[in-house]
Amino acid sequence: MSPSGGVRKVIFDTDAGVDDALALVLLLRAPDVDVIGITCCAGNVELDQVVENVLKVLAVCNANVPVYRGAPHPLLGQKKRVHAGYYHGSDGRGDSEEARQIDITAQKHLVSTESAAMGMYKVAKEAMAAGDKITLIAVAPLTNLAAAHSIDPCFSSLLKEVVIMGGNMEGKGNITLSAEFNFYFDPEAANIVLEEFCCPLTLYTWELCLEHPIPATQFSQIAHPGHSPISQYLFWISHYSAYTHHNVDLVKMHSSPDVLAAKNNTGGGTVDGNDDTEGDKAFVTADPMAVASWIDPSIVLERHTRPVMVELGGHWTRGMCIVDWEKKAADPEVLTPPFFNKEEHRRGVGIPTRLDTHKIVQMMLRAAGAPTAAE
Amino acid sequence: MSPSGGVRKVIFDTDAGVDDALALVLLLRAPDVDVIGITCCAGNVELDQVVENVLKVLAVCNANVPVYRGAPHPLLGQKKRVHAGYYHGSDGRGDSEEARQIDITAQKHLVSTESAAMGMYKVAKEAMAAGDKITLIAVAPLTNLAAAHSIDPCFSSLLKEVVIMGGNMEGKGNITLSAEFNFYFDPEAANIVLEEFCCPLTLYTWELCLEHPIPATQFSQIAHPGHSPISQYLFWISHYSAYTHHNVDLVKMHSSPDVLAAKNNTGGGTVDGNDDTEGDKAFVTADPMAVASWIDPSIVLERHTRPVMVELGGHWTRGMCIVDWEKKAADPEVLTPPFFNKEEHRRGVGIPTRLDTHKIVQMMLRAAGAPTAAE
Amino acid sequence: MSPSGGVRKVIFDTDAGVDDALALVLLLRAPDVDVIGITCCAGNVELDQVVENVLKVLAVCNANVPVYRGAPHPLLGQKKRVHAGYYHGSDGRGDSEEARQIDITAQKHLVSTESAAMGMYKVAKEAMAAGDKITLIAVAPLTNLAAAHSIDPCFSSLLKEVVIMGGNMEGKGNITLSAEFNFYFDPEAANIVLEEFCCPLTLYTWELCLEHPIPATQFSQIAHPGHSPISQYLFWISHYSAYTHHNVDLVKMHSSPDVLAAKNNTGGGTVDGNDDTEGDKAFVTADPMAVASWIDPSIVLERHTRPVMVELGGHWTRGMCIVDWEKKAADPEVLTPPFFNKEEHRRGVGIPTRLDTHKIVQMMLRAAGAPTAAE
Amino acid sequence: MSPSGGVRKVIFDTDAGVDDALALVLLLRAPDVDVIGITCCAGNVELDQVVENVLKVLAVCNANVPVYRGAPHPLLGQKKRVHAGYYHGSDGRGDSEEARQIDITAQKHLVSTESAAMGMYKVAKEAMAAGDKITLIAVAPLTNLAAAHSIDPCFSSLLKEVVIMGGNMEGKGNITLSAEFNFYFDPEAANIVLEEFCCPLTLYTWELCLEHPIPATQFSQIAHPGHSPISQYLFWISHYSAYTHHNVDLVKMHSSPDVLAAKNNTGGGTVDGNDDTEGDKAFVTADPMAVASWIDPSIVLERHTRPVMVELGGHWTRGMCIVDWEKKAADPEVLTPPFFNKEEHRRGVGIPTRLDTHKIVQMMLRAAGAPTAAE
Repeated sequence: MSPSGGVRKVIFDTDAGVDDALALVLLLRAPDVDVIGITCCAGNVELDQVVENVLKVLAVCNANVPVYRGAPHPLLGQKKRVHAGYYHGSDGRGDSEEARQIDITAQKHLVSTESAAMGMYKVAKEAMAAGDKITLIAVAPLTNLAAAHSIDPCFSSLLKEVVIMGGNMEGKGNITLSAEFNFYFDPEAANIVLEEFCCPLTLYTWELCLEHPIPATQFSQIAHPGHSPISQYLFWISHYSAYTHHNVDLVKMHSSPDVLAAKNNTGGGTVDGNDDTEGDKAFVTADPMAVASWIDPSIVLERHTRPVMVELGGHWTRGMCIVDWEKKAADPEVLTPPFFNKEEHRRGVGIPTRLDTHKIVQMMLRAAGAPTAAE
Repeated sequence: MSPSGGVRKVIFDTDAGVDDALALVLLLRAPDVDVIGITCCAGNVELDQVVENVLKVLAVCNANVPVYRGAPHPLLGQKKRVHAGYYHGSDGRGDSEEARQIDITAQKHLVSTESAAMGMYKVAKEAMAAGDKITLIAVAPLTNLAAAHSIDPCFSSLLKEVVIMGGNMEGKGNITLSAEFNFYFDPEAANIVLEEFCCPLTLYTWELCLEHPIPATQFSQIAHPGHSPISQYLFWISHYSAYTHHNVDLVKMHSSPDVLAAKNNTGGGTVDGNDDTEGDKAFVTADPMAVASWIDPSIVLERHTRPVMVELGGHWTRGMCIVDWEKKAADPEVLTPPFFNKEEHRRGVGIPTRLDTHKIVQMMLRAAGAPTAAE
Repeated sequence: MSPSGGVRKVIFDTDAGVDDALALVLLLRAPDVDVIGITCCAGNVELDQVVENVLKVLAVCNANVPVYRGAPHPLLGQKKRVHAGYYHGSDGRGDSEEARQIDITAQKHLVSTESAAMGMYKVAKEAMAAGDKITLIAVAPLTNLAAAHSIDPCFSSLLKEVVIMGGNMEGKGNITLSAEFNFYFDPEAANIVLEEFCCPLTLYTWELCLEHPIPATQFSQIAHPGHSPISQYLFWISHYSAYTHHNVDLVKMHSSPDVLAAKNNTGGGTVDGNDDTEGDKAFVTADPMAVASWIDPSIVLERHTRPVMVELGGHWTRGMCIVDWEKKAADPEVLTPPFFNKEEHRRGVGIPTRLDTHKIVQMMLRAAGAPTAAE
Repeated sequence: MSPSGGVRKVIFDTDAGVDDALALVLLLRAPDVDVIGITCCAGNVELDQVVENVLKVLAVCNANVPVYRGAPHPLLGQKKRVHAGYYHGSDGRGDSEEARQIDITAQKHLVSTESAAMGMYKVAKEAMAAGDKITLIAVAPLTNLAAAHSIDPCFSSLLKEVVIMGGNMEGKGNITLSAEFNFYFDPEAANIVLEEFCCPLTLYTWELCLEHPIPATQFSQIAHPGHSPISQYLFWISHYSAYTHHNVDLVKMHSSPDVLAAKNNTGGGTVDGNDDTEGDKAFVTADPMAVASWIDPSIVLERHTRPVMVELGGHWTRGMCIVDWEKKAADPEVLTPPFFNKEEHRRGVGIPTRLDTHKIVQMMLRAAGAPTAAE
């Protein structure tokens, strides 16, 4: 049941990489959540691929949700695109042959003829009229949200809140040295959402995700070929990135669970010969952190509310977030260099800084149909 | 009659300054033109004022055209706004008391509940479906056009062409040293239109307008209290900018037409004591140049087709256009510094460089109901 | 004695704020260090004031060191200057009347007619010729160092190393939201030093200083009216910034040492009514951290070597450092967005991340002639 | 004789491309000019090549002038370098084998051990002390001048004037779409000279040179294998760029002078088959325009004095000049967008806009020892 006791309505905006799939699974399997639309945005992969990947997850989860095609490229155009196939696999599904073969013919009718921006706008307007504002969870570049705002600058006032996986808080990036992928992909869109949206915003940053990895032993149960069709799908699509980017060999872990359960104290060989054993390893995932925390707000152990800006210029820093930790812009005692505008009282964005990883893992295990050991 | 023999349909996108009014008058009075929508954009003045000003012109011209409210601020948000009341008067109508008193109650129903971006999109789609693509003439910041593109990236393929007053071609600006107002107001929107739109584009630049001023003696007949309600309205709203920015005293000219007709050879006193006589003076106007040239294509005496880019960064040059005069980007012999991308074959934008001012003046005189001396 | 057993020669480049004075005291009082020149740079205060403040410290310490006037403004010119009087007092000495009255007539002859850049260059060249490379410790904007490099691009090869207080490592600034003062004051100079200098570089960043504050009870002994002329001078100049910026009331602490020594367990009133007691407070100081760590290298408990870049553009981030923590630029597996240049193998800069605050405090107490309780 | 009746002292700062050589020849052969130093700067070619090329010209002209090695790369460092071998040939001498074989052993002693910045500074200081300020003519990136300024901010006050070939005035570039080579190569240095230098400055822009080409028939006499060793050298080094960039085949012109003299009215074939005949063609050259105009000030037919700024940021416009034609920054009636600073009263830079090409050609012919037909 939701914190308020009823079913909570949500639109999920996604660029359909590996972690998007896990996040969507969490959302579809949450008992008190109604996913009333999935809007697609180019990002991790090309737009057509995003739509296809979403339909795969719907097929695997046996769910019927309207899907909207959104922006095929960032606000400022197709020439500035960069994708993340190096991480998610060229198809955003870890280039898994098994995932490729899942039939989505029965899901094709779910794709709306309306664009994502229009879809969001209409759904939000109807919900508003019905007295039941919806939440928008965006784990993709924010292009669709910015487009909806350009249709009607009141768009954000129709929303209950926007929950975002994106941006950063300590200048640590995952696509450039200082920028997180979603924000780097479309900094202007991120800027529009942070500066112009008037509903509550929450930002699950890249550093937050980095600091809350999922232990490999537990992740190998979430992405497991044997527990359920969902856990099997997660295994198929996660294997590539787990192996190449997190140094976690899921196949090996599944084949020698006992050794791993014993925390690898045999000191056996590892993926690429380093000294870590599988059991000490961890899998960093981003989008599920935002979704899980929204499903169960008690996951957020610490949270700040601060103005957040996005750098649009910069040679090294385009797309980076700047957090006004000490609310200096309003501090009358601070020197005012050209960039401070004291009259500009920016409102704060929610920035969770500590999460309950254990609860997240349990939610993931449940959603994947894996055994959740009493702990 | 139109060049093609039929009525030409057009949407007029405006920020309702003084020259916008004159341009709209030309359009409404052109015999073979059907203005099927007027979309409003914040720019010279605030959005509400833009809508009001458009309704005034419709009232004066006794015309019924659907009016759409559009973007209240540039794509990147309300914090970056700058208006041009210093030129157009704080109300965009030269702060004329007479203009203020024109009643627009009967016109209020013309304002659509649809937003400008939605309106443009739907009208263009319907026209396309009817086999009759429309022209979009934009003499405002290009925010509404960029918004329509964000609804559906195919928007521009629905249009016959886009005719723009905006930008520059020799680095000469009118709001900053190097940028023209419409492009400076929303450089990102201008960039989207120039880089992403796939229909033919024509750019009437600021320097083109500067080099084709309207002689003061003739302008004083176009903006004249006695010829017609339209010429009277143009007189009311033009007086302020003519006097303060072009050093042309319309009142004085109207009161001593004979002297002026004699080309001021009496050497009498002038507005602020300089040596120019009224008859040698000229009134630079921008939006009517684009509209008149579209109504009568024979006005364009010289025209080039070149790639045009918009600078989004830059301390001094934000919003400035860069014209690739020699198509260097595709020239294999030119050194390739970091900024050249030879693979990027940008398509050309039409850039008129010489106009037939006489024809423009005659069209203005006719539209204003002023006598057009046989010449 | 120095690590290598002999006297170590050093040039000290300073902009003569409060922490510069404490740093210079440490250097002048270090037994095995020979300060062979002090080069002045505009920064915290105007250049003339910097020179005057340096002479005051030399007078108080009874030291004779050649002083060189350096850059009166950043590399790119006088129009972009910003000072830090809001922190250091308008004279960079906490606006202390007592400090103002210190006579420096006898020190005036120490000021060289040679400019700082020339002085640095010649001294370094002579030392090099004598087989004894010098260290350059820069706790000011890096303008003088960049100027010396422009005289001769081999300048840095004449140096043993450059030790810098400046820049940041987590995007946290003290003059803008994301930039540290010295680097923000002259980002181009910082860029030249980080990109072009070929000797070893060490960067004591702002966040490092923030994380290693000096406990107020101890700082009140270092800056104390009664222990020595030096500690008295430090008290005079520190009082303003301690009170206004660190919420530490040195006068109150000196007048009730017993209570404070008892860790304020009386819960008495505080400077501005918050709940902290004086004894729990701390004084963040920057330049002495770099100098102390150089004098006694065992102070550095943890240190990384990473490429560091300076953002020169950016609306929010000009002057910010970007640290390549994971050496991604050389990682062949990472996606290459436009800004990564894999061929560019940048060398690392030393970045201390953990210091032994206790040792620093002891060194300060000794330098100030204060009792150093056995602990 | 000089305008003032005596010998005029000048330092020539060069990056030794083809047009630099012609400019240097003009200077060395001017009867009333004393070239007291040649300072070398990386630009068209690498620094070592610049020095070598200068010595070649001195050998050919039989002149003894001290030569100073200067900046090997732009102010902000070696990573941002771009050269112009595509135009000047990889050796800056049109890759001429004959030029390569000129022996410069006897000239090597002319190279000073002092750096260019130091050399400039000392020479200027001595001249100032002797009551005879010198002129600095810079036809290279302005790196050496900026370096001299960083040694001593009073450097420019020691100079009579600085004459520059560089920059642009209508946003037309020759290395990028909007920037001239010398300014693009080191925009920060150009900015320092334009913003900080306090002596009179004159800017011979790229567009000025473009609009004043040398007719091919006359240039073929200046660069001619038979008139003198100098004209022969100019022929050797100019052939490549004349042929590849200006479509002028000097060899062909020299072999059929009669036909050419008859203005090619035979309509014969041309270099690459276009319809131009050799006689209608023209050779655009830059540096000699500045030097000739300084030698004979009557060459300048029109000249404006306006503030000029250099864009340091910008994606398309880095290195471009912005000319404040209407002195808007000081115009109280103009709207003040963020970039205008009305309090900033920048001083004007001399911008020649019309030259007497005939006089320039005659000077070139004389300098090259070619016949100067009475006209």
